[in-house]
Amino acid sequence: MTFADLDPPARLLMGPGPVNAHPRVLRAMATPLLGQFDPEFTAYMNETMALYRLVFQTENRWTFLVDGTARAGIEAALVSLLEPGDKLLVANIGRFGGLLEEIGERCGAEVATVAAPWGEVLTAAQIEAALAAHKPKLFACVHGDTSTTMAQPLEGVGEACRRHGALFYVDATATLGGMDVPVDRWGADIVTAGLQKCLGGPSGSAPITISDRAAEVIAGRRHVERGLAQATGNGRRIASNYFDLAMLMDYWSETRLNHHTEAASMLYAARECARVVVEEGFPARFARHAGCGAAMAAGLSAMGLMLYGDGAHRMSNVTGAFIPEGVDGEAVRGRMRRDYSIEIGTSFGPLHGKIWRIGAMGYNAMRPAVLTTLAALEACLRAEGFAARSGVEAARAALQAGGVG
Amino acid sequence: MTFADLDPPARLLMGPGPVNAHPRVLRAMATPLLGQFDPEFTAYMNETMALYRLVFQTENRWTFLVDGTARAGIEAALVSLLEPGDKLLVANIGRFGGLLEEIGERCGAEVATVAAPWGEVLTAAQIEAALAAHKPKLFACVHGDTSTTMAQPLEGVGEACRRHGALFYVDATATLGGMDVPVDRWGADIVTAGLQKCLGGPSGSAPITISDRAAEVIAGRRHVERGLAQATGNGRRIASNYFDLAMLMDYWSETRLNHHTEAASMLYAARECARVVVEEGFPARFARHAGCGAAMAAGLSAMGLMLYGDGAHRMSNVTGAFIPEGVDGEAVRGRMRRDYSIEIGTSFGPLHGKIWRIGAMGYNAMRPAVLTTLAALEACLRAEGFAARSGVEAARAALQAGGVG
Repeated sequence: MTFADLDPPARLLMGPGPVNAHPRVLRAMATPLLGQFDPEFTAYMNETMALYRLVFQTENRWTFLVDGTARAGIEAALVSLLEPGDKLLVANIGRFGGLLEEIGERCGAEVATVAAPWGEVLTAAQIEAALAAHKPKLFACVHGDTSTTMAQPLEGVGEACRRHGALFYVDATATLGGMDVPVDRWGADIVTAGLQKCLGGPSGSAPITISDRAAEVIAGRRHVERGLAQATGNGRRIASNYFDLAMLMDYWSETRLNHHTEAASMLYAARECARVVVEEGFPARFARHAGCGAAMAAGLSAMGLMLYGDGAHRMSNVTGAFIPEGVDGEAVRGRMRRDYSIEIGTSFGPLHGKIWRIGAMGYNAMRPAVLTTLAALEACLRAEGFAARSGVEAARAALQAGGVG
Repeated sequence: MTFADLDPPARLLMGPGPVNAHPRVLRAMATPLLGQFDPEFTAYMNETMALYRLVFQTENRWTFLVDGTARAGIEAALVSLLEPGDKLLVANIGRFGGLLEEIGERCGAEVATVAAPWGEVLTAAQIEAALAAHKPKLFACVHGDTSTTMAQPLEGVGEACRRHGALFYVDATATLGGMDVPVDRWGADIVTAGLQKCLGGPSGSAPITISDRAAEVIAGRRHVERGLAQATGNGRRIASNYFDLAMLMDYWSETRLNHHTEAASMLYAARECARVVVEEGFPARFARHAGCGAAMAAGLSAMGLMLYGDGAHRMSNVTGAFIPEGVDGEAVRGRMRRDYSIEIGTSFGPLHGKIWRIGAMGYNAMRPAVLTTLAALEACLRAEGFAARSGVEAARAALQAGGVG
C-alpha cells in the first residue's frame, strides 16, 4: 500500500451534503495555529460567537461551537438537557427525527413521538396536541430533514412549547445559512447545525446556540472537572464529559476553564463560513438557495422525473426525484460520478432505491452547478435507456425568475 | 465588531500542546472535499486506517478516527466498553488520570484508583497489586500525562491485565508519534490519541485502535441505528450515539453503514500527520524528540532553573521547570509571548503558579525551536529580575549528543 500526496478528483458535490466547501473556507484551514488560551485566539473565539449570533439570528450569549460533526451538536444539546426519566417529545418527519428519538433513549429519557409520514410535515395543531398530551420537558425537531427533503414549518412552535412548559430544540443542520432559521423569533431554546450543508464548509464543527432559559437548566447540572478548581457540583451530572454544555460554557466564557483543546483549524473554518454568510446577507443568500432549488425542481420535472414529497414544504436546498421505473438508480449515480465527476445522493430506509436526492447548497447553490448537474443527469438517463427530455431550459427560466444570475 | 481576514501572529508554540502544525498538514486541509461514500474518499479512509496501524505499531483491524478532539477518543473508548456497574481501575499520575476517573463515573462505572503523587509514576508492582485487588473489567491509564510531564512505563502491563481478566486502555494523546507507543507489544486493547501534540497537527481528530478482544466486547453491544436497516441489537445499548464504537466500526468497515458525516478536512490532516511520521521513521523521530527534550532539560538546568518531577520518567517532549522564587510566572509568559511570540505553558491544579511546562514536540521538536525558546526565556527571566545563566550552550551540547542536527 502506498500513501501518495492527497490528490482527490475535482468533484461537484450535488447530494444532500456534504457539498464543496467555499474556497475561502478551505484556505482558512491552512492558517497557522495558536494556543487555545492565547489572547489572539480567544479573540477569534469571541468573534466566532458573535458571527454565529448573526447566523442564528439570536441575541443568545451562549452561541459557540461543539468540536465534532453535526450530530455532536445534537447529542450535546440532548444529553445536557435530558436526565434519565425526563420526557422528550420528538417531531419525526424522517430519519433524523429517528436519530433524535434514539439519542433521547440513550440519555434515558422517556421518548414520545409525533410523526408525519415520510414526504410530509406536521401541522402546528398536531404539534400542539402532542405537547398537550405528553407535557414533555423537551420538544425536539429537525428543521430540514434531508432524508425526505421536507422542511418542517416552525413558526409558532416556540409559543406552543412555552404554553406547555417545554424547552424547544431544533436541529438546523441542513438549513442554517440556506433557509431562514430565526432562532429568537421562533423562540427556540437550543439550535444546532453543521458546516457541511448550506454553510459551505467541511463537516467537523457544530455551531450551537442556547437560550438563557435553557442555559439555566444546564447550569443546574454544572460540575467542575476534577483537578481544575475546587470541586463543585449541583444537580445530576451530565452523562457525557465531552458534550457537557455547562463545561463548554465555562470554556467559552471569560473564565476560560480548560476542557478540550479547541479544534483551531475547524474554528477557522467555521468562522470563515459565517463571514461568507454575513457578507452575502440573508436576503441574497436565501434567495440564491430558493432560486437554485426551484430551478432544480423545475429542471427535474421538465426532464420527465416525478418529484418526491409535499411540494409546499420542500427544503429549498435539496430536491428528491423518483428514479423512473426500469432505471437502475445506482447505475445513473455511477455514470454521473465517472463521466461528469458529479455526485448526487442516494437515499435511506423506506426511500432506499426509490429516489435520488439532489442538492444545491452553500457554495454550490449557483447557476453553473445547477445547470451542469441537470445537463449531465439528462445524458446519463438517456444512456441508461430513459427517454429524458431536456430540463435545462426550464431550470434557466426558474433561475431567471428567482433572480439567480 | 468587525470580522477581518484571519491573520494570526506567527507564534512558536512551545507549551504542552497544541503545537504548530506541520506545514504539510496545514496545506492538506485546504484540499477540496469529496462525499463520504465516494470510492475515492473511502480509499482515503482505508489508507488512513493503514497509516495509523503503522503509527500505533499494531495489526488491529479496527484502527480509525473519532471525529473530535483527543478527549472524544477517550470518551468513545470508555463509554463503549463500560456499562453501569462495571469496574474501572484508573492509574492516576496527574490531571488526565482524573479525567479518566471522571468519564468512568459518568459512564456509571464503579471507579477505583491506583495513584502516584504528582511528579512520580506507578511501579509495575503497584499496578499489578491494584489489578489483583479490584479485578476491574477495564484498566485505564495515561501514557504521558502533560499535567505532570511524567511518562508511565507500560511494559508488562498488558500481561498483568490479562492475568487479572482486565481490558487495557491507554490514553496516548501526548506521546503518540513522539515516544514509543508499541500497542501490540504492550498488549493494549484500546489506545487513543489526538493530533495536536507529537503528531504535529491541529486538534480535532482522535486516532483510535481497538484489539479484537475489545472489539468483541463492543460488538456485544451493537445496535443498528433506527431507519438505516432492520433494527437489531444485543446487549446493553452504549450510552452515546456519537461515541458508539460499534457504529463507528460499521461506518469504517466495508458495510459503510451511515453514521456521522466524516470530517473530511480533519481526515486529510490526520492522514498527512501519519504520512509525515511514517516517512521520517520511528528511530529518527523518537531520537529527535528525545534529543530535543534532553536539550530543553539541559538548557533549563544550566540557566539555573530546577526541573520538576522524577527525572527517570520524564516525557521526552515536555519538560516542567519550577518558577524561581520571586518571579511572576505569568509575567514571564507574557514577555515570551509579546517580545518573542513564543508560547510556553502554565500548569493546572496543585502545580498552578509553580511550574512552567515547556514542550518541543511534533514539528517543533527541532534545534532552532529549542535554542530560540531557551535564549528568549533567559532574556525574559533577566528582565523579570532573575539572574539567569545561559542555557543555550548546554542545550547545544545535548542536541549534538542526541544527534539532532
